[in-house]
This record gives sequence, C-alpha cells and structure tokens, in this order.
Amino acid sequence: MSEQKIPYKIYLSEEEMPKYWYNVRADMKNKPAPLINPATKQPMTFDELRHVFCDELVRQELDETTAYIEIPQEIRDFYKMYRPSPLVRAYCLEQKLGTPAHIYYKFEGNNTSGSHKLNSAIAQAYYAKQQGLKGVTTETGAGQWGTALSMACGYLGLDCRVYMVKVSYEQKPFRREVMRTYGATVTPSPSETTAVGRKILSEFPGTGGSLGCAISEAVEDATNREGYRYVLGSVLNQVLLHQSVIGLETKTALDKYGVKPDIIIGCAGGGSNLGGLISPFMGEKLRGEADYRIIAVEPASCPSFTRGRFAYDFCDTGKVCPLAKMYTLGSGFMPSPIHAGGLRFHGMSPTLSQLYHDGLMEARAVKQTEVFKAAEQFARVEGILPAPESSHAIRVAIDEAIKCRETGEAKNIVFGLTGTGYFDLYAYEKFNDGQMVDSELTDEEIEKGFATLPEV
Amino acid sequence: MSEQKIPYKIYLSEEEMPKYWYNVRADMKNKPAPLINPATKQPMTFDELRHVFCDELVRQELDETTAYIEIPQEIRDFYKMYRPSPLVRAYCLEQKLGTPAHIYYKFEGNNTSGSHKLNSAIAQAYYAKQQGLKGVTTETGAGQWGTALSMACGYLGLDCRVYMVKVSYEQKPFRREVMRTYGATVTPSPSETTAVGRKILSEFPGTGGSLGCAISEAVEDATNREGYRYVLGSVLNQVLLHQSVIGLETKTALDKYGVKPDIIIGCAGGGSNLGGLISPFMGEKLRGEADYRIIAVEPASCPSFTRGRFAYDFCDTGKVCPLAKMYTLGSGFMPSPIHAGGLRFHGMSPTLSQLYHDGLMEARAVKQTEVFKAAEQFARVEGILPAPESSHAIRVAIDEAIKCRETGEAKNIVFGLTGTGYFDLYAYEKFNDGQMVDSELTDEEIEKGFATLPEV
Repeated sequence: MSEQKIPYKIYLSEEEMPKYWYNVRADMKNKPAPLINPATKQPMTFDELRHVFCDELVRQELDETTAYIEIPQEIRDFYKMYRPSPLVRAYCLEQKLGTPAHIYYKFEGNNTSGSHKLNSAIAQAYYAKQQGLKGVTTETGAGQWGTALSMACGYLGLDCRVYMVKVSYEQKPFRREVMRTYGATVTPSPSETTAVGRKILSEFPGTGGSLGCAISEAVEDATNREGYRYVLGSVLNQVLLHQSVIGLETKTALDKYGVKPDIIIGCAGGGSNLGGLISPFMGEKLRGEADYRIIAVEPASCPSFTRGRFAYDFCDTGKVCPLAKMYTLGSGFMPSPIHAGGLRFHGMSPTLSQLYHDGLMEARAVKQTEVFKAAEQFARVEGILPAPESSHAIRVAIDEAIKCRETGEAKNIVFGLTGTGYFDLYAYEKFNDGQMVDSELTDEEIEKGFATLPEV
Repeated sequence: MSEQKIPYKIYLSEEEMPKYWYNVRADMKNKPAPLINPATKQPMTFDELRHVFCDELVRQELDETTAYIEIPQEIRDFYKMYRPSPLVRAYCLEQKLGTPAHIYYKFEGNNTSGSHKLNSAIAQAYYAKQQGLKGVTTETGAGQWGTALSMACGYLGLDCRVYMVKVSYEQKPFRREVMRTYGATVTPSPSETTAVGRKILSEFPGTGGSLGCAISEAVEDATNREGYRYVLGSVLNQVLLHQSVIGLETKTALDKYGVKPDIIIGCAGGGSNLGGLISPFMGEKLRGEADYRIIAVEPASCPSFTRGRFAYDFCDTGKVCPLAKMYTLGSGFMPSPIHAGGLRFHGMSPTLSQLYHDGLMEARAVKQTEVFKAAEQFARVEGILPAPESSHAIRVAIDEAIKCRETGEAKNIVFGLTGTGYFDLYAYEKFNDGQMVDSELTDEEIEKGFATLPEV
C-alpha cells in the first residue's frame, strides 16, 4: 500500500464521501461543559435554545452520545457540487524546503465562499428550511461565513440576513457583492436596526464594530422576527459536527495510500476548521487506537488557547447569548486593529477547549508577518494564494518540516488549508509594500480582557 | 456504458491526463493564413519571429503538420498541481431549468489565476526558461492572463513584467496585488516607460488604455531588453495548442461515460479557451469522424465574428506586431466603456477565424445584461460565481437547454466555464444595483473600426 505512488491530489469518488458526520463528543470522557443561561445560571434547555436555533440543530448541539449522525441526502447532494475536496501532497513545497517530511494539505477553498464554511452553512440552512422557516440571520467578520450562508440560502430559497462587521463591510465591498449576488441582505454592524446596535453606537460612536457585536445584533434580529432563527459559523458543537466531513475525507484519502499522519495542524479562530479536521483522528486518540500530535495555531494578537483563561464567558459583546465554558480572552477583548490575519474571536469552541484542557492537543501562537511570509512562499510553489487564516497553519507546517530537515525524519505532516485569500488582498498589499508590522499584546491588555469575564 | 450513473464531477486520474497537446492545424485542409511582416508584406520567418518570441514557441507557432506535440514532463508536473480540472454535470441547473438536456461544463477556475490561462502561461514560461532567458513581458486586460503568467514565472524563478490596461489597474487593485505576491512587476499602460506608450499618451492624454496598446508596450519592452521575450495569452496558434488540454480532458471524461456532445459552446475573446475546448472535437469533424454543433459566443459590444471582417490586421494599437488574417473589427476599434463583460479584443484567433470562415462553427453575439442574468442564475444553483467572460457561454448554454425543454430533446450540451468572477465584482455590483445597461453598437462605429484596417 504505502509503496503506491501518491498523486499530487487525492480525490475520493462520490461513493467514498462520508454518509455520516462524526460527533467527537461521544468519545470524550470529559464532555464539554454545557451552555448556561446567564439569568438562571442553569444549563440551557432544549426549550430555551429553540427560540434562537432551529430544533434539529439544538438536538445536535445537545447530543453528547450519538457518535455518527446521518447526513441527509439533500445535503450530501449539495456537498457533491463542491466536494470531495482534494487532499494535496505538497510535493513542490517539500522540494523547495528540502525536507524529508511528507506534507499533505486538505484544501477547502475550491468553492465560491472560498472556505470550508459551506459545509456547515448548507446543513444549518437545510434544517431551517425543513422546519418551515422563512429565513435565518447571522454575523460575518472576514466574510467567508456570510458568503457561505448566502450561497446555501440562495440554493434553498431561504431569506438570509447578514450583519457584517462594519470595518469589513467597508474594506471588503466585493465580499458584500458576492453575498448580494446570492440574494442576501447585508447590513454593516453595529447598525441602527437593532436595540443592541443602537446601544453600542451610542456608547462607541464611530466604532468599526466587532464579531461579538455583530452576533448580538443577528441574535436580536432573529428572535424578534417571525419565522427566523439565528445561525453561527463556528464555536458551536453542531458546527464541529458538520465540519467533521473535512477530517473524515482526509482520513479516507490517507488510508487509501496507507499514510498515517504524525502531526495534524489547523488554524483556530472559533475552532470550526480545526475541530472538523481533527475529529476522526481525535476519536482514535480518545479510544486509545492511535496517537497523533495535534497542533492548533492561533494569532499572537488573539491568543485564546495560549494566553486565555478556561472559564465561562459570553460569545458576544452585547451579552444576549448563553454562556459557554471555553478558553477566552474575555468578551470585551479587542484584537489590535493592525492585525490583518483573521481569527479575531475572543473565545474558542467549548469542545476543543475541553480537549486542550485535557492535554489532548497543543497550541501555538504565531505573528502575522511570519504568517504572511509563509503564505507568500506557499503561494509561489503550490500555486494557491492562501487565506491569511489558513496561512497560520502553513507557518507551523513549514516550521515542522524544517525541523524534519534538521533531524532527517520523514514525518507525515497534514494541515488544513481552509481557504483562499482572494478577498484579503488589502492585507497582502500591506505585506507586499513592507508595511505590515506585528503588535505586541501586553499583559495589561490581556488583564483588561479578563476583567470583562462574567461571574458564574 | 451510457447507463452508468454520471457523478456530479468527473475527475480524471493523473495517468489519464494528456501527455500530448493536439494541434488542430494538422487536420485543417485550409490552414490559417500566415503572419505577415507589415514592412515587407511577406510571411514572417522563424528568424524574424524569434526576436519577439522564444525559439521553441516560434516553432510551435509555425508548425502546421505535427498533430501531437509532447508535453514536457516539467509542464505535466505543474499541470498536476491544479489539473485535471473537473468536468461537471450541471444536475442542479438542469433541474432548475426543467430541461431534458444534459448540461456539462469544463471548469477551469480552480486555480489562483482564476482561469484556464495558466495552461499556456506555464508552457510559455517553461520554454523561456529552457532557452536561458531572464524574463518575459506581457500585457493583461481583465488580469487573468497576467496573474497566470506571474504564477508560472514565480514558480520557475523567471522575471515577469506585466503591462496592465490602466483602467483595469485602477479598478482591480487586487489583481495587481496577486501578481505582485507572485513577484511580478506591474505597470499601468499606457506608460512613460516605452516610446509607444509615450506616443499614445501624447495623442490621447488621460486615456484608460486598451489591450492593443498594452501589447505594443510589452513587445517594445521585450525587444529592447537583453534576455527577454514577449509572450501572449490568446490569439496565437501556440496558445490554442497549449489550451488543447482543456478539450482533450473533456473528451476523455465524456468518453469514459459514453457521452457524445451535441453542442459545444465557448466564449470567444481572442479564442484561447474556445480553441482549446473544441480542438479534439473539431479534429474529428475535420477528419469526418463525427459531427458537432460548435458555437462561439461573443459580446454584442465587441462582435468580431458576427460583425467583423475576415482580413489582415494588426493585433495591437501601436502597430508593432505582425499582421494576422482574422475576423476583426479593426485595431482602432474601441468597445464601449459601459461594457463590463471582458472579451474586449478587436480581433480573433486566425485558426478559429479560418474554421469559422469555412463554416465549421457558428457564432452568436449576446448582450451584457442577459449575460449577467445567466451568471446570477448559474451562481445560485451551481455554487460557482462565474467570470463575466465565461458567462457568455452560460447564456447560450441556458438558451439551448430551454429550447430542448420546448422540443423535448435530451441533447448533450457541453460548455467551457473558463473561470471565476472573484475579481469582477465591480461589474456584479453594477448588475446587483440595477445600473447595468446595454450599449447599441451602431454601423457607424463598426465602419470607423474598419477604416483602421491596413492595406495588404
């Protein structure tokens, strides 16, 4: 098996695509802590959550025991439009680095949303449609999630209302136009259309907004609008469940050629990509069937894992959402405005947080100039212009491959290439012009964020 | 065979990828007319052409007899990074249209240049490198070709100097940044760096430039610079040769499932995509082995085939290039500035021109608002935001599928989806805002263009 020549790109056939999502929580001894109602301090119930999320998604959110959940046929058909995504053997990068390591990346950018976000967007839109809803609301920062959701809604004929972080709305007019082409309504956040938006605007006039603030607006909009629910592109258990298709396909592709990864690397903002990529491998690790080094990569300017606190916190600025136990910098934490690399969310998936807390994975923080250097190097030899977010994983994959060059080890390194950087060219321009710098995140700033943590 | 379930996407294995390009001229009874030296009025010789182009590319340009030309291993390895491209069965579009037709499209947009242009860029850069050159110069309009060439040069470590039509340079800063990320130098054209640029600037101060003018500058730059040659992304015979990989892969994929196309559709600017897509099918047609309806689609505002003249003309505005016999609107023709859909070149591939002249293919001109309507419809059901250029082919594919709905015929329609529209969102924005209109091209404007035709 392992002697077989491995092609540049491993594509699965439609028959080999996953028919079930894998729910890693089923194999966790220590389950992620439940979402908590900030008013009662009690775990959120099905009935409380269904005012915000679709019924079936609430069931998935709360399901800690079912290991495999069937992917509805309609979603599998949609997946066939842009999946399976290729698992690429980075022959050219290996050669350029002169490393004995074998580098593989799972490339999720070959669709118009430009990222893996579509995997969960179609699932969430599908269940909303099934429930007979009129539409959904959401927030978007860099824009991948909003684009993905607008594509899914456009396909199913569902209304889609996106609150886009104002600074992104202005810096990325093209993202906005893609969403509009798919029929979505895009509102810059904070806006005058919600009470929480008006409150934030009066407190911080002229603010460029934040993800946490756009979440608050989207939730308020959904709960006040007949026949609407709120959907979220990361952090939640349900999202990691849907994103498990990434890891399942990766594992099937590697197994076909008898390749066992030594190191698995993914960038981590809210955790949707990392959680999806690692899930089947983490499952084996949890069941004691195999061992893997798993590395989460985060920006040095928003280091939830490496400098955050494992505590209950709000997911949003307006504090309208339930509390989640996670690695967090505090919902009041604001990443430096000079940070260009995405992954700006203050918290982290509760599932990944628990796994990290239990010592089942590592985390590393990297600086943005180093990230863009890796991005440029990768683009020139592998022919794909990567998203800044994905480039965090490239940075660490290259670092690990260079270590192999030094030790002579032929390790198998697998990383998640979540998407393309076609809509992030302001950041590339800054880098090309030599204008990109790194910000130092001081202990004082970190403490200021922690001061916003709620008492539970 | 034909009973086999056809997947959404047909991917060939690496072994099934073409090892030879197909040179359709070898099977043409009436060969395309030779390039002519405007000074001597004699056919351009190898020695004359090699001052402008690399030696091997001149050989390919002049070779009318070799049907199959081997693809060098290094180019085939590069192709493996982003090819084979999928042949997609448009199940969702068929369902949406309620047509009995089977629609297939060959999608060439899954690479960072966003289009099929990379197929010829890597070939041209490879031969330049083989010849020991330092670098190449070229022009780019919409930007796909310049991006593709900068990727190929970045990979091979070759210098790349791109003259970008000024209006595009200003409207598409992101395109420019992709090229810079791959290490290219990008100059807005017309520029002060060339004599022809200065001449055009003094005649038309403040002009936004044109493709024909950028070609003149790039040619001048290459011929004045030690160790440089000029390369071109369309029109030439060599380009159609390299692009034959599109058609060869398409035919192999269709043959695997026993599908014989009834209609083959491609957009046509200079002809690189259309020529590549149809070449093996046209070969069968020329050899009398099969028959296909082949339709070239061009914009109503730049209708070289449908309203042009079959005559010798300059490929560039500065008249520094050889004369080519082709369907042309005259090198002085300027498409309306309100035209957003790409495909703005005044001429057409001499090979395709001869085939069209001989009645072996049809041509149709379409209006841009109709093109963008088709683009939006396609994007929503097939999940890919198409390039405006490609959307010309989508328009006619949809029209033909609707005819099938009326007649009840289950025709096999194949079209070329040359690329994605991620860098064309100004045009989409105009369309989304309801601001896009069609221009009427008058007979007077056409005559004005013809008046610039040279006497040969």
